Amino acid sequence: MVDILHKVGIKSPAAEVYSALTTTEGLAGWWTINTRGEGGALGGVLQFGFAVADGGGFDMKVLELDAGGRVLWEVVDGPEEWIGTQVEWRLEQVDDYTSVLFAHRGWREPVEFMHHCSTKWAIYLMSLKSLIETGKGAPDPHDVKIDNWN
Amino acid sequence: MVDILHKVGIKSPAAEVYSALTTTEGLAGWWTINTRGEGGALGGVLQFGFAVADGGGFDMKVLELDAGGRVLWEVVDGPEEWIGTQVEWRLEQVDDYTSVLFAHRGWREPVEFMHHCSTKWAIYLMSLKSLIETGKGAPDPHDVKIDNWN
Repeated sequence: MVDILHKVGIKSPAAEVYSALTTTEGLAGWWTINTRGEGGALGGVLQFGFAVADGGGFDMKVLELDAGGRVLWEVVDGPEEWIGTQVEWRLEQVDDYTSVLFAHRGWREPVEFMHHCSTKWAIYLMSLKSLIETGKGAPDPHDVKIDNWN
Repeated sequence: MVDILHKVGIKSPAAEVYSALTTTEGLAGWWTINTRGEGGALGGVLQFGFAVADGGGFDMKVLELDAGGRVLWEVVDGPEEWIGTQVEWRLEQVDDYTSVLFAHRGWREPVEFMHHCSTKWAIYLMSLKSLIETGKGAPDPHDVKIDNWN
């Protein structure tokens, strides 16, 4: 099992970051404009569609929601490599910043697609940071492209 | 042991990417302007200094050099968490792109500093891509900042 780990620091109260992770409006502002479903309730399922996949993408079930600092999703539909993996967000206020510790855990193999997703998560985390700090993120299909895949 | 993995695709011949990884001029164009040493010879040591660390940084020994597609460094001096870890670059020409598979292997623990370094590597890989595709990278101290550390 291999994990993708990242960190960004966002100049904002943690509540704003939490909102951007648990509302469809927030998620659509930094990850993909094609976000549907329910991110603010335990057991809710979020559906993320991407232009590069002709609207396909990932379905995430919300496993944990703690406004004090933790959100946990499990991938219930999407590419085979993603199914069963978990995405964890830990938030902590540090001075003027909200520290965001991100983990996408449970990849079975360190395949090329995992390398791609790791870099792409960094790009989207910077989009989240930008959305909150400047009001403008870069969600799919306006996301920064990193390679011949996307 | 935990690893940082990334991928970028760069619209250029692999030889240009190889040059940006094996010459001080190339490395200074995307990672840190404070690059010294010898990156083009086996056993050579590269010294990377960063403004955020008052000129401190990482010393890397060149363990493998294959213009056909692989560069391997070992960290011989720097922060305790980095010492003994290895940084591997694999290059492959795919159509108009050079696919760059990056791995920073051998972290003993998934500490917060590793999360930070993972995201920061993605930022610097995008700087490498930008240097080669546009002629302008964003090396330290002109690098994109990601959090309260750097």
